[in-house]
Amino acid sequence: MTVHGGMMSDESIDAVVSEVGPRDGLQNIARVMPTAAKIRWIAALAAAGLREIEVGSFVSPKLLPQMGDAEEVVRAAVAIPALTVLALAPNLRGAERAARCGVHRITMPVSASREHSMANIHRTPEEAVEEVRKVRKLCDSRPADGRPGLEVGISTAFGCSLQGPVAEDWVMRLAVMAAEAGAESVGLSDSTGYANPAQVKRMFKQLQRELGDKAGAAHFHNTRGQGLANVVAALDAGVKTFDASQGGLGGCPYAPGATGNIVTEDLVFLLESMGLRTGIDIERLIAARALIAEGLPGERIYGNVPEAGLPKGFVYARAAHAG
Amino acid sequence: MTVHGGMMSDESIDAVVSEVGPRDGLQNIARVMPTAAKIRWIAALAAAGLREIEVGSFVSPKLLPQMGDAEEVVRAAVAIPALTVLALAPNLRGAERAARCGVHRITMPVSASREHSMANIHRTPEEAVEEVRKVRKLCDSRPADGRPGLEVGISTAFGCSLQGPVAEDWVMRLAVMAAEAGAESVGLSDSTGYANPAQVKRMFKQLQRELGDKAGAAHFHNTRGQGLANVVAALDAGVKTFDASQGGLGGCPYAPGATGNIVTEDLVFLLESMGLRTGIDIERLIAARALIAEGLPGERIYGNVPEAGLPKGFVYARAAHAG
Repeated sequence: MTVHGGMMSDESIDAVVSEVGPRDGLQNIARVMPTAAKIRWIAALAAAGLREIEVGSFVSPKLLPQMGDAEEVVRAAVAIPALTVLALAPNLRGAERAARCGVHRITMPVSASREHSMANIHRTPEEAVEEVRKVRKLCDSRPADGRPGLEVGISTAFGCSLQGPVAEDWVMRLAVMAAEAGAESVGLSDSTGYANPAQVKRMFKQLQRELGDKAGAAHFHNTRGQGLANVVAALDAGVKTFDASQGGLGGCPYAPGATGNIVTEDLVFLLESMGLRTGIDIERLIAARALIAEGLPGERIYGNVPEAGLPKGFVYARAAHAG
Repeated sequence: MTVHGGMMSDESIDAVVSEVGPRDGLQNIARVMPTAAKIRWIAALAAAGLREIEVGSFVSPKLLPQMGDAEEVVRAAVAIPALTVLALAPNLRGAERAARCGVHRITMPVSASREHSMANIHRTPEEAVEEVRKVRKLCDSRPADGRPGLEVGISTAFGCSLQGPVAEDWVMRLAVMAAEAGAESVGLSDSTGYANPAQVKRMFKQLQRELGDKAGAAHFHNTRGQGLANVVAALDAGVKTFDASQGGLGGCPYAPGATGNIVTEDLVFLLESMGLRTGIDIERLIAARALIAEGLPGERIYGNVPEAGLPKGFVYARAAHAG
């Protein structure tokens, strides 16, 4: 059974697909998906077997009106059985809002690129880590049965479109600092599509040496078509949790044809065809794309498996295990 | 230096990208690219650093009018310095035509799926191997200085859209048979986008155990978005040569948005960013896309790297080696 707020502990699955479309996807689209549509979409994703969904971001609604209904969405999502509900909070104030509506896990971004960190959240990376420490205290102050988990994603971990290369040693130091500040899990994020498989394998292996079981999720974008290639490398390094967005929603603002997050449907197919159980039904997952179309009519979504269909004779990993 | 007809022997590169767009790409498009445009395109690809190009297919022009000018294209391509020119021939008759115009290497398909083999070339897999034996004799009968190399690609090696799963043992037996019949190299092809990285790694490792240095190229399609993920697995298994098509040309007849072959531009970026020297200049390669547009105005091509551009501070593998 999934422990809310905690990390994977479900023995019936081998890899966790953490859906970030309702947060990372929607925040990169100018239009706002109506709250009721978001909730229907999240419910459909959960019904397809997704066990973790990042449903919103607790930032200023002036900055991101798309995320203005985060409270309402979290409250609805936590009522869905067997679903771990995540929300992003860049600071203590956002985390307080998230905790108040009963989110299961708070995820905080800490950017390894100094330039990106300043441009994005007006804080140095070290100041972002201090904010993690404050949120740790907030979490600890909550009653044990409603205490949210806390994870950190090190963004621009594989390079930055402002400063270019980012030193790997520094990324590791920052990951250790975030864990020491109280994150239960620290992952590495490549929001700009800069990562390559050699780097991914090397860095996630190093992350595990540094953090042990606090080494967290891989967050890849498909900007340069390398997203699933990087997943293969991360699997090889022992990563168990992968962020993805249904339909690659959100695209890529500066590269019209390039998707943003890796596509959940294609990721689940990758994992299941490799024999790794995700607990997700690909056909029900593909059917949930209709709810994006309902909530954001005409929005472009991506995905190869939804277009090509499953191979003839395709066998889910769970069936292969049983057989 | 590349030995014409032979396999990789160039110590300045770590991985061979074998461009198949002028054959696999163009044969999947109903329109015919004019011969002069093909030749200009092939020259531009070679100028970007590609060292192997499959320039056409020696099949009946009635069956594939797109390949009707194979003789002329081969004759022009073999005049390009430092380029190994490949052509596909499904049978002895095609191979004779290919050899007469001085092709450097003949590539023959042998399909592991009995159903696919019958539907595609009206021969059983065993009969296709017998054809390889005949072509071996043809090659051996040519004067040593103009003797073409001979390679085989086992198609539907990872599954078949007609018969579904294909037994791995049988694929390996067939590969051994093809090598014994005289192929200098035997690769595995996934034209239907059925392969997954676990299978790719397992099968290419097995291929190497069976064939040693006759284990050949990986030919992947991106039908289900898994193409580069499969490349990572194949690299892990020691594969050195990868087929790809510029712009993923040829698309996928039954999945409009899904590309056919993996995209050369994205593959080269993958390899170079992993530190593997290809000898290819990505910007010149991207510039060669214009020649597809000239030859086939309005034809849809794909590729993430061409749309997103190279990362800030990108370093080629050759520079990293030197540094």
